[in-house]
Amino acid sequence: MKLTSYEDSLKILKATIKHWDRVEKVTLTNALDRHIAYDIIAKDNHPAKPTSAMDGYAFKWNENLNELKLLDILPAGSDKTISIKDNECVKTFTGSLMSDGADTLIPVENVEISNSIVKIIKPVAKNFAVRQVGESYKKGEILIKKGTKLNYAEIALLAELGIFHVSVFIKPKVAILATGSEIVDLGEPLQNDAQIRSSNHIALAMMMKKLGAQPIVCEIVKDDANTVKTAILNALKSADVLLTTGGVSMGDFDFVKVALKDDFEIVLNGADIKPGRHIKIARLGEKYIFALPGFPYSAMVMTTLYVRVLLNTWLHQDEPYIKAILDEKYEKRSPYLEFTAINLEYKDGKIYANLNGKKLGSSAIINNLTNNAALLVVPKHTKSIQKGEIVDILMII
Amino acid sequence: MKLTSYEDSLKILKATIKHWDRVEKVTLTNALDRHIAYDIIAKDNHPAKPTSAMDGYAFKWNENLNELKLLDILPAGSDKTISIKDNECVKTFTGSLMSDGADTLIPVENVEISNSIVKIIKPVAKNFAVRQVGESYKKGEILIKKGTKLNYAEIALLAELGIFHVSVFIKPKVAILATGSEIVDLGEPLQNDAQIRSSNHIALAMMMKKLGAQPIVCEIVKDDANTVKTAILNALKSADVLLTTGGVSMGDFDFVKVALKDDFEIVLNGADIKPGRHIKIARLGEKYIFALPGFPYSAMVMTTLYVRVLLNTWLHQDEPYIKAILDEKYEKRSPYLEFTAINLEYKDGKIYANLNGKKLGSSAIINNLTNNAALLVVPKHTKSIQKGEIVDILMII
Repeated sequence: MKLTSYEDSLKILKATIKHWDRVEKVTLTNALDRHIAYDIIAKDNHPAKPTSAMDGYAFKWNENLNELKLLDILPAGSDKTISIKDNECVKTFTGSLMSDGADTLIPVENVEISNSIVKIIKPVAKNFAVRQVGESYKKGEILIKKGTKLNYAEIALLAELGIFHVSVFIKPKVAILATGSEIVDLGEPLQNDAQIRSSNHIALAMMMKKLGAQPIVCEIVKDDANTVKTAILNALKSADVLLTTGGVSMGDFDFVKVALKDDFEIVLNGADIKPGRHIKIARLGEKYIFALPGFPYSAMVMTTLYVRVLLNTWLHQDEPYIKAILDEKYEKRSPYLEFTAINLEYKDGKIYANLNGKKLGSSAIINNLTNNAALLVVPKHTKSIQKGEIVDILMII
Repeated sequence: MKLTSYEDSLKILKATIKHWDRVEKVTLTNALDRHIAYDIIAKDNHPAKPTSAMDGYAFKWNENLNELKLLDILPAGSDKTISIKDNECVKTFTGSLMSDGADTLIPVENVEISNSIVKIIKPVAKNFAVRQVGESYKKGEILIKKGTKLNYAEIALLAELGIFHVSVFIKPKVAILATGSEIVDLGEPLQNDAQIRSSNHIALAMMMKKLGAQPIVCEIVKDDANTVKTAILNALKSADVLLTTGGVSMGDFDFVKVALKDDFEIVLNGADIKPGRHIKIARLGEKYIFALPGFPYSAMVMTTLYVRVLLNTWLHQDEPYIKAILDEKYEKRSPYLEFTAINLEYKDGKIYANLNGKKLGSSAIINNLTNNAALLVVPKHTKSIQKGEIVDILMII
C-alpha cells in the first residue's frame, strides 16, 4: 500500500476543516491565552487629547522664554480646565491632560521655583514631553487581529480601550481515550511486569490545554471490540474531537482501527512519516477522531503534526516552523519523512539544532521530548544531513 | 544624583534574595507549568526488561532461519511467561515484554503464516524492534532538574515513572496595587477626559500568572498619603511581593515614594535605564515592594527587568537573553541604557530584530508590547546601532 505523503495528508485534512465560528464572552480577567474572535479596531485616537509624558510645567513654547508664571497645580485626574497664555504655566503630572494653550512640558528637574515664578534652568524643545493626539494609536487602526492569543500586553490594551467583556473562540473540547489491556491508570499499582503506566492520556490532556483546547480525559479501555467502540461513541457525545491512543497498528487487538471502519468517514489512513505511519483520522459529522499510536512519544508528535493543525486552523494560528542550522551530522534511519526530537540553541543571532542527550531508539522514549525539545524535519529522500546545513524545525510547545 | 547602572542594580537586588524553600504537593493533573522542587532521578532502568517496539513475532535470532513455529499469541498486558527455544516464536504486540529466550522481533509485515508456521519473507537484523533494557533511561539518570517548568512531556514522563503527587514550589503571592487619583477600574465609566482606565493592575496580574506567581489584585487607591501607605501595608499581609504602579516620580502626589521612605529598607532607588529611571525596590522583612512607574508600558518592562529576576531566582529560571541581528539602523534617543520594544523574525536559521509597526513616543504606548514583542537592549554609551549588528535581546513572554 502506498502511504500518503505528509504534505498530501495535511491537504486532505485541511480540505475537511470547517470554519470554527463558536464564540463566547469572557471577562478580561479570564482572557489570558484565549483566542480573540474579532479584530480590535481603535474607535478613537489615543490619547484623544495631548497629555503630559512626565511631571513638569505645561506652557506655550517660545524660543526666548526664561521664566513662567505658575497659575495652578493640577493633580492627576483633575478635570479643571485652565487656559494658558504666553509666559504662563500649570504644574502637570505624568499622564495628565495638557492645559489649553500649552504645547510643551518642561520637566521638574529643569526648573527652579520661587514665589510662583518658574525659572527655566535648562530649556527644552517645542512639544517636549507631550504625548500628541494618537501617539499610541489612531482611530481606525487595527490593534489586535482576530485569532490572536491574548497575552498580557493585549490584555492591558483591551483594558485601556475599556473592553471588559471580550469575545473569544470557544475552546474546542477534545476527549482523550487511551486504549490497551496493558495500560494502568495514574496512581494505580502495576500488577505485573507486562503492565504499563498510562502517560498518554495526561500528556495529551496537557497538550490540549497548551493549544487552547479543553481536554476531557476518558476512562482507559481494554482491548475489546465492543468496549472500544462504545467508548468512542460515548466520548464523541461530549467532545468535538476525540484522540485515541493505541489500537491502530497491525495487531490482532487493534480495535480502534476496527471501530473506525464501521461508522466513520475515513479522512486519512496512514502517512509516509516516522513516527506515526499508522495514524488514522476519521470523521463523524463535524467531529474528528484522531487514532494515535500507543507509544507516548509518537502520540505526542502525532498530536503536533495533525491534531494541532486542526486546532490551529480553527483558532487562526500558524504552524510554528522555523529554520535552524544543524550542529552535527544526522544520519537518517528510516525510509520515511522523519520528525526527530532535537534541542535548539541560540548563539550570536543564529539558531542551532543538536541532538545532545537525545536517546537513539524506538518511538517510546518520552524523555526525548522534555527540556523544550523541537522536531527536526528530515525529508523522505534525504539520506543524511551535514553539520552546518539549514534544516526545517517544527516547534512543539 | 548618580543613578545606579542596571548591572549594579541587579547585583544589589540579587544579593538580597533568599532561597525560596516553600514547597507543596500537587497532583500531576494540576502540575502543568509548575516548577518542580527536586531532581527527578530514575529509580530503575526503563524499560526494565526488553520489550517489543512493534507488533510481530518474538524469536531467537539465527542467521539461517526461514521459518518459526508459533507457540502462542500473547495479548498486551498478559503476564503469561513462555520460554522460546530455537525456531520458535510468540506473537507479541507493541510495548509488550519479550518472551524469555527471544532477542529479536520480526514485524507482522515481514512474514506469512499458515498452520502456526511463521514463514520469514523479509529477514531482519538481530535485536530488531526490541527496546533494550534502559533504552529510555538508566537507573540513576537525572530526568528532570529541580526548577524545571513542567510541560506536557515532563508530565508524561512523571506519569510513566508512577509519580502522581509531585512536589512543586509554592507560587509566590504577588499583590498588585495601582495608585493614582486619575485611575478608573475595569468596567467603570470615565467621568471626564482627565481620567484614565487602569490597565496596569490587570496586565501585571497576567504577567504574574505567566511567570508562575499568584497575583492578588488590590483595590485602586487615590493619591493620598495615608491611603497609599495603609494599602501597601495591608497588601503585604497577604503577599510575598507587592507591585505598586504610579506615585514614584518627581511629583507632589507621589505618595508611594513617601510611604516607602518611612518603614522600609530601600534596596534600590532609581536606575540608569529607560524606561524606569524612577524604579524603587524596598523590603520589609523578607517581603519585597517594587514601586513601578505609572505608564503601563514602563510598568510591564520594569516587571520584566526586576520583578521577574526575583521570581526567576526563586523558581530556578534563567533570564531569557538571546542575540539577534538588527535589521535596521537604530538611533538612540536617551542617555540611559535603553530597553526598546522590537519584533523578532526568524529567517534561514537567523534571528532578526526590527521595529516594524513600533510607535515612536513616550513610555505610555502599550501596543508596542503586543504581538510577541521582545526588548532590544541598547547600552548606555551606544549612540546608534547599524543594520546587521548583533544585538542583545531580552525576551518578555
